[in-house]
Amino acid sequence: MRRIGLRIAYLGTHFSGFQVQPDRRTVQGELCRCLSEYFGTVVRVTGCSRTDRGVHARDFHALAELEETASSVPTERLPLALRPYLPSDLSVLSAFDVTPDFHVRHDVISKEYRYSVYRAPSPDPFLADRTWHLSHRFENGYLEAMRQSAAHLVGRHDFAAFMAEGSEVQSTVRTIFRIEIEEQGGILTFSVVGDGFLYNMVRIIVGTLIDVAKGKMTPRDVLFALESRERKNAGQTAPPEGLCLWKVLY
Amino acid sequence: MRRIGLRIAYLGTHFSGFQVQPDRRTVQGELCRCLSEYFGTVVRVTGCSRTDRGVHARDFHALAELEETASSVPTERLPLALRPYLPSDLSVLSAFDVTPDFHVRHDVISKEYRYSVYRAPSPDPFLADRTWHLSHRFENGYLEAMRQSAAHLVGRHDFAAFMAEGSEVQSTVRTIFRIEIEEQGGILTFSVVGDGFLYNMVRIIVGTLIDVAKGKMTPRDVLFALESRERKNAGQTAPPEGLCLWKVLY
Repeated sequence: MRRIGLRIAYLGTHFSGFQVQPDRRTVQGELCRCLSEYFGTVVRVTGCSRTDRGVHARDFHALAELEETASSVPTERLPLALRPYLPSDLSVLSAFDVTPDFHVRHDVISKEYRYSVYRAPSPDPFLADRTWHLSHRFENGYLEAMRQSAAHLVGRHDFAAFMAEGSEVQSTVRTIFRIEIEEQGGILTFSVVGDGFLYNMVRIIVGTLIDVAKGKMTPRDVLFALESRERKNAGQTAPPEGLCLWKVLY
Repeated sequence: MRRIGLRIAYLGTHFSGFQVQPDRRTVQGELCRCLSEYFGTVVRVTGCSRTDRGVHARDFHALAELEETASSVPTERLPLALRPYLPSDLSVLSAFDVTPDFHVRHDVISKEYRYSVYRAPSPDPFLADRTWHLSHRFENGYLEAMRQSAAHLVGRHDFAAFMAEGSEVQSTVRTIFRIEIEEQGGILTFSVVGDGFLYNMVRIIVGTLIDVAKGKMTPRDVLFALESRERKNAGQTAPPEGLCLWKVLY
């Protein structure tokens, strides 16, 4: 069995998320199809994470597994070799051999997501599908209020309030290592680093922080929401198009 | 007759250019449809320029003409009012009243086009459809060679060699005021400012300069091509997706 690690990037707009689904265009499905076509044999593909419909990735890690006999292409030449098989919204950045004990999902130490908000009166066609456009006025001191709120979320907590209702998961405890909020040229960027994320967790965190910026919630309300462990006390879910899986550490 | 100037931006990927064509999705067609729907009457739309299929615009000027009676919305509020009618790849940035003698095409003093090339081994899904991806190696001193070549093109010249063959036009003389070439973060940007452009002129200029960067042509060859007035002596035509109408001056 040949096992190949792949760093990939994709624009999520025209994918129904990472994970394979019948009759849907998914990243896993496309990657599996391209690799199987190239190698001329069935290739099994697994990913470091699931991303939702419309969510992007700049440095997603996937594992490809196939029979050793299929091809002798050197692993490092795979990105170039695969290029003719890949669609324009999916790219293989690099490929590397992995040890037999490597697990693409369990071995993740931390993941960084970035969420981009475009603040302007008119939407920008060049930023549609890759930012959340907001034309609302924010309260004075909104950056400081968002940062205060975010500080309550950093650390090891039960994030049940920041998970989409109806999700099934063994534990809702996760660790957020860092939340950074920067604004430049009309783009507000949220960078969230953690050891793992619940379903919709980053989007609910960002939506809640935007509610703080609008003056609908206070930093105290955010702390209350966290401690209550109830989804209804947190803010809105930000739309998927602003979200991007930025970096995965092993 | 009410006459309204519109500054618009569009991502050209899913448009068959600006100009209306039967059974094709065009910017003029979409804008006309949106304005007619909003005003409840036929609106005539003309543009400052034609752009090709796949070419983008960040500051295109259009003129809308309609019967005075149709609506009393203040002109400056139109961008907001039109937003629900516009698709996500087309945006109205501002609207302004124009004098009866204003002509959206003839009154243009200069236009700036920018062309973006992405240089990297692997394509970036986030830059597909908006840059020309090149993984070729360039010759040493390619920036300087391109700038020397570009200097030959600046000024008032007969640009017949830099026009798509088969185009019909009264005169092939145009003035280029400036060509700037900058590289940053893997993105090579060509900024070309002129009083007017022939069909495919910017794309042929960029394609020719890239041929210089690759060592296929010299600055001297570019001067020869210009003076020959023959298309076959200039370089390749760069693909449309890297091109953007950046600024129009009246």
